[in-house]
Amino acid sequence: MPATAPSPTDADLPSVFATVESEVRSYCRSWPTVLASGKDSWVTDTEGRRYLDFFAGAGALNYGHNNAHLKGALLEYLSGDGIVHSLDIATTAKQHFLETFDRLILKPRGLDYKVQFPGPTGTNSVEAALKLARKVTGRESIISFTNAFHGMTLGSLSVTGNSMKRAGAGIPLVHATPMPYDNYFGGVTEDFGWFERVLDDSGSGLNRPAAVIVETVQGEGGLNVARLEWLQALADLCHQREILLIVDDVQMGCGRTGEFFSFEAAGIVPDIVTLSKSISGYGLPMALTLFRPELDVWAPGEHNGTFRGHNPAFVTASKALEIFWSTAEFAAETADKGALVRAGLEKIALSHHGISARGRGMAQGLRFDDADLAADVCRAAFERGVLMETSGPSDEVVKLLPPLTTSPGDLQAGLDILAESVAVAV
Amino acid sequence: MPATAPSPTDADLPSVFATVESEVRSYCRSWPTVLASGKDSWVTDTEGRRYLDFFAGAGALNYGHNNAHLKGALLEYLSGDGIVHSLDIATTAKQHFLETFDRLILKPRGLDYKVQFPGPTGTNSVEAALKLARKVTGRESIISFTNAFHGMTLGSLSVTGNSMKRAGAGIPLVHATPMPYDNYFGGVTEDFGWFERVLDDSGSGLNRPAAVIVETVQGEGGLNVARLEWLQALADLCHQREILLIVDDVQMGCGRTGEFFSFEAAGIVPDIVTLSKSISGYGLPMALTLFRPELDVWAPGEHNGTFRGHNPAFVTASKALEIFWSTAEFAAETADKGALVRAGLEKIALSHHGISARGRGMAQGLRFDDADLAADVCRAAFERGVLMETSGPSDEVVKLLPPLTTSPGDLQAGLDILAESVAVAV
Amino acid sequence: MPATAPSPTDADLPSVFATVESEVRSYCRSWPTVLASGKDSWVTDTEGRRYLDFFAGAGALNYGHNNAHLKGALLEYLSGDGIVHSLDIATTAKQHFLETFDRLILKPRGLDYKVQFPGPTGTNSVEAALKLARKVTGRESIISFTNAFHGMTLGSLSVTGNSMKRAGAGIPLVHATPMPYDNYFGGVTEDFGWFERVLDDSGSGLNRPAAVIVETVQGEGGLNVARLEWLQALADLCHQREILLIVDDVQMGCGRTGEFFSFEAAGIVPDIVTLSKSISGYGLPMALTLFRPELDVWAPGEHNGTFRGHNPAFVTASKALEIFWSTAEFAAETADKGALVRAGLEKIALSHHGISARGRGMAQGLRFDDADLAADVCRAAFERGVLMETSGPSDEVVKLLPPLTTSPGDLQAGLDILAESVAVAV
Amino acid sequence: MPATAPSPTDADLPSVFATVESEVRSYCRSWPTVLASGKDSWVTDTEGRRYLDFFAGAGALNYGHNNAHLKGALLEYLSGDGIVHSLDIATTAKQHFLETFDRLILKPRGLDYKVQFPGPTGTNSVEAALKLARKVTGRESIISFTNAFHGMTLGSLSVTGNSMKRAGAGIPLVHATPMPYDNYFGGVTEDFGWFERVLDDSGSGLNRPAAVIVETVQGEGGLNVARLEWLQALADLCHQREILLIVDDVQMGCGRTGEFFSFEAAGIVPDIVTLSKSISGYGLPMALTLFRPELDVWAPGEHNGTFRGHNPAFVTASKALEIFWSTAEFAAETADKGALVRAGLEKIALSHHGISARGRGMAQGLRFDDADLAADVCRAAFERGVLMETSGPSDEVVKLLPPLTTSPGDLQAGLDILAESVAVAV
Repeated sequence: MPATAPSPTDADLPSVFATVESEVRSYCRSWPTVLASGKDSWVTDTEGRRYLDFFAGAGALNYGHNNAHLKGALLEYLSGDGIVHSLDIATTAKQHFLETFDRLILKPRGLDYKVQFPGPTGTNSVEAALKLARKVTGRESIISFTNAFHGMTLGSLSVTGNSMKRAGAGIPLVHATPMPYDNYFGGVTEDFGWFERVLDDSGSGLNRPAAVIVETVQGEGGLNVARLEWLQALADLCHQREILLIVDDVQMGCGRTGEFFSFEAAGIVPDIVTLSKSISGYGLPMALTLFRPELDVWAPGEHNGTFRGHNPAFVTASKALEIFWSTAEFAAETADKGALVRAGLEKIALSHHGISARGRGMAQGLRFDDADLAADVCRAAFERGVLMETSGPSDEVVKLLPPLTTSPGDLQAGLDILAESVAVAV
Repeated sequence: MPATAPSPTDADLPSVFATVESEVRSYCRSWPTVLASGKDSWVTDTEGRRYLDFFAGAGALNYGHNNAHLKGALLEYLSGDGIVHSLDIATTAKQHFLETFDRLILKPRGLDYKVQFPGPTGTNSVEAALKLARKVTGRESIISFTNAFHGMTLGSLSVTGNSMKRAGAGIPLVHATPMPYDNYFGGVTEDFGWFERVLDDSGSGLNRPAAVIVETVQGEGGLNVARLEWLQALADLCHQREILLIVDDVQMGCGRTGEFFSFEAAGIVPDIVTLSKSISGYGLPMALTLFRPELDVWAPGEHNGTFRGHNPAFVTASKALEIFWSTAEFAAETADKGALVRAGLEKIALSHHGISARGRGMAQGLRFDDADLAADVCRAAFERGVLMETSGPSDEVVKLLPPLTTSPGDLQAGLDILAESVAVAV
Repeated sequence: MPATAPSPTDADLPSVFATVESEVRSYCRSWPTVLASGKDSWVTDTEGRRYLDFFAGAGALNYGHNNAHLKGALLEYLSGDGIVHSLDIATTAKQHFLETFDRLILKPRGLDYKVQFPGPTGTNSVEAALKLARKVTGRESIISFTNAFHGMTLGSLSVTGNSMKRAGAGIPLVHATPMPYDNYFGGVTEDFGWFERVLDDSGSGLNRPAAVIVETVQGEGGLNVARLEWLQALADLCHQREILLIVDDVQMGCGRTGEFFSFEAAGIVPDIVTLSKSISGYGLPMALTLFRPELDVWAPGEHNGTFRGHNPAFVTASKALEIFWSTAEFAAETADKGALVRAGLEKIALSHHGISARGRGMAQGLRFDDADLAADVCRAAFERGVLMETSGPSDEVVKLLPPLTTSPGDLQAGLDILAESVAVAV
Repeated sequence: MPATAPSPTDADLPSVFATVESEVRSYCRSWPTVLASGKDSWVTDTEGRRYLDFFAGAGALNYGHNNAHLKGALLEYLSGDGIVHSLDIATTAKQHFLETFDRLILKPRGLDYKVQFPGPTGTNSVEAALKLARKVTGRESIISFTNAFHGMTLGSLSVTGNSMKRAGAGIPLVHATPMPYDNYFGGVTEDFGWFERVLDDSGSGLNRPAAVIVETVQGEGGLNVARLEWLQALADLCHQREILLIVDDVQMGCGRTGEFFSFEAAGIVPDIVTLSKSISGYGLPMALTLFRPELDVWAPGEHNGTFRGHNPAFVTASKALEIFWSTAEFAAETADKGALVRAGLEKIALSHHGISARGRGMAQGLRFDDADLAADVCRAAFERGVLMETSGPSDEVVKLLPPLTTSPGDLQAGLDILAESVAVAV
């Protein structure tokens, strides 16, 4: 039954949100309720209603809400008056994180990266990556991809595709050129034909780029998945043309696609990697920029930031690495859960016209040919107690980012509600 | 005894800092020790050595380390599985913060501001402010001031003065024009002569600005204090020429100069205000952008960010407002302490040639005609158990930003060590 | 016989060229001789040597050197003390030109264009076109094409492809995005796939363009010929998306391809047209910018220039229109001559491996797979008394731009020498 | 008698000007008549009315209209089928010009400059100068001055002050910062206080400039005259800080202020000089860019242009140098005439309130406190048979640029009419 329900508003929220908070507020309009607490994959609002969270902080809560192990470590640290804020002064929490990250993440993967703490958000990590790439190469131009999302500060916004968000800059966004992401032409066109051609043609008019910035799966862009061979070809192209390759793993890193880094499956080693969102494991602000040692040409303090030493996040981050990444088990489980979700989505897609499943690992979704249906489905799911959001240039994709720790039973329960929501909306 | 000790290095730190962390690390080179815990104005390193903290997280710890009241509220919230991460979904913690901020800060001061949560860092708040100013006015150019510091992301960096940090951008920083900050010419030149003249001359070549961004006291710039009448004249000029006035109160807000907002003493009402650093009160990442309701032209989600809903910070922020800002007492105490510090500094300045005291409220310092001495003094103070840093374009100023909650006794103890450090270094 | 002769130098020229003129001088290095006089398709140097001119001022001498009719009109005007320089004051010469251009060019073709005199060079006309397009649309971005050439001033250079010339700017060239010119992928790829796709995708990251600027045949770019159906599709695309279409007819206009405007054959009507080079008919500096009346939003004097009223050029321009464009005969003759040249080139191409003929109308040439051969051929031709230059991103094309008035006999003589030069060089 | 006559229009001109020419036309609105011929300082319209020309092609006709000597040389060259158009191929006319310019201008003044022919307009010469300065220094930023005028193409427009003309760009004009021109503050402020201070302050936020571009007298800017000691101080400052000094002598060069170069009187040697307007001596398009040999880092063809070899202009330019610049007499006569004009203007200024004389050499004018009067005066003068235009940011200056060859009697006649026009208008 096609149904276009009235758009949800936040009119039912306590009035302070409308009277004091800026019009820029967004999610509270889609999900007009006041959340009070959360535990693993579930959140509870002030009226006691529970929601299954298939949104997970837009990928910042890969281990769910208030994971007991992480909570224990955090409370212990805070109770003991551990240093909370330290900029880049050395602290025990930071030392422990660096050692743990090196031991459990970098060394086992043979990754020889230096670690920068750029300021505790994804966009700050991207800004640091772009600055470093320009400084190292002496070039100014960056290649981004269609429907990329890298952040809202001016540098990151320049390499972001969304026209509404770009217009927010209020100045022309320059020094970046978009290239077609994998499968942009439905597989018809040779993959790097255009990019390679203009790079090698001295008359093409393309400013020689310092770097390429890419997401392995475009979450905000509509769950567009780059094939592994496309990523390999991109890495080869960058290597041959001496262009730095930046993988923005802010949303897809930390196990979202299975392995810790989303690029591992492609067997590539980016020059620069950005991490944020789930790196703290507990939803606490934290970000890293990783790069090959040869690129570590920063002067001390050349890029800084007040909250680059957020120690409670280091504590939960270390604990999360120990709990989830000491063995290969977690990645394997995530792969299995991803397959479970994908199977459920494929089933829904088969039962309706104009719907297709897409995604990789535990970043999965449904694309609707009739874009308006995606919002209808999310609204219906919310009414049925599941949080999931839309993405894509026309908001045509229902995106599922459940905590990776969600039980198979909960995953299935959510899929069942999604199926029902689709049936109601279509 | 003039003494140029060898520059401190982080060679004595555990090796992971040098082998894994990027060369961009900075403070750990000046203070080569590993901090383990903190309480109020004191921190303790792994070897049990205690330091009196006159740095206070570069202004992010106005209420000291791990304040007992705030800690209590934070532990209670976390223990109860309160929502940690929420983007801009409504939560109980956010609701409580908005109500508290409105009740204790905005309403009593007659400030009719909308509140945006831009992403939990100062630079993100500045980026939001610049974007909004450009969107509202349809103009692109921003007026900044000599020796301003507003952040490291591309938009904020464009309005920052420091040439080393600007060079880090790797691209020409445009759309901003610097104007002389108050007293830039030693009081010789009429204050706004140049700025007014080029604004009013249609042939001046100055792009008509969207906004002026200013700090009331330039902390990073060397504790340059704008006179209140200069701030008033600037506000008048902006108002008359229909240019938006942005006060960046990231470092000087939250009581650093006495009143909650540093611009209150001047009796001005900026169009846009940025807050971060001490707004959470506990060193947790958080930031706000405030603006007049007429300027609230954001579309929902037009500026977003993963960590704009950092609820533990909302909890401590609310508690800090309740504890410190329910009455006028705290501001008065801060004024008194500022006077105490200033008197101590004046005394030191009098006893040596080429040193002068400067600052406002609890942002005070000593300027050395021989710039190198400032670092020597900070090093001597560190050896004697006090943390304080240099600032200014030539690092010629020893900057004191003690927690506002520091006891008069501790303030005096720190001043005594400073006096001794000066005596040793000069 | 493959032969790589030593590069020609201007060492044999009178010393003043090397001692006083800048290193930027270029053609005098390829053709190291001092020209003294010219008549129609022939020039004579100071030693009495004659050269057949298949270069024609890079397209500025479509009617040859010192055409007798134009010369007569010019001498009469100058002898009578007609106004030479007038900026945009009305003069008899300008009035006569406007009336003649309207009567013989615009009206017969049904073109309702306003005429701007922007300054007497092609690049100035392009700058005026870009400024107007941006002013009219309120957008900043321009779409240019691979291997485009539009001029050396900053605005024109931004839409020019050649990387050596772009680097001369010394600043990043922004506000323009290159798109693939027709046949850029050898016919494999759908023509406007990429351009249409990014225009229509709100998440593509392409700034919505004010205008597209295109040459119908890219002369400097290597005689790349756009198919008429490609031009039509481009015009349709621009019209549908409300993007202005600028045809840069500086080199290909004034009959070079047969009809007066090179776009006539495609049956399209650009929004803006640039003309220069041969518009004066006598090699005198002159340029026009034409646009639809609705676009004529200039304020008086908003774009100006000292030499926009170069009356001797108006005199020869009017006479050239009267002599050559009062009937359709000239265009038809040019078409025939173009066919003659093409046949000659095809014959040469057939007799050697790795050579292909290309071009349209009287802009024809030979492309060499081995790019170095093109310069060898031009050198051999010069030694044999014919002037022709190379073009293309790798200088791989020998470009023939004979005066349109060259007799069939002279055309054949030149082709014979070209054939001999190819035989010697290959 | 104060009188505000209706603004002149071009309604009385032949209709083709309104129907076919763009709205951008400007001077024909102030002087609505059709000029037919000119001789020395006089022009005649189609109805036989004669005007004394105190405008002189905005400085392009320093030797008046159709000077007999130059005309003779030009007609002889054209009659003999001399090469008209040659790009940068060597020609007899170019050789003769280079030798003559070197012999009569550069050598006697001890100026060791290389000569570039950039394209035959002032703005093209400025674009070449800016590109070269950026290429040589590797810096992007240029310092310009308040009320500067350097041209309408994008690079030149960025260093031009007029806000109406700047807005025509349609994109933000960046990479340039305006500084106060001499006497901008009425002599109150120390001259280079601001500029020196921000250059030397590493925290000022000023991008380190590649070059300073300056006019010795700002013609379009309102006849603002820089003191010679100010120019010397500027040259010293640039030299000490290793910033290139560009003197834009397009309007004030070629003897307008007395000596051939307007900077000679200050005894300075700029790094780069731009010349155009009167360099051909006959109103024919021509321009030069001069620079120290060490700066001649151009690659061949890196900056080019179709009309950079406009030989008829070279012929009249050489003849003009021989006629006027073989001895020091002409400069001395110009100085005398300048004094005569100045005396006349001073006299007028004395007889009315709110009028002041200003200028240098034969660039003189009257500034009106009531800006509207300037246009009234010009209109009254036109009605009385004298052409003179307004300038300045508010068009508040009546500018007199008579041909330098104007007889003392004609100068006095023009001054008398000006006095009468002032009397009528005020």
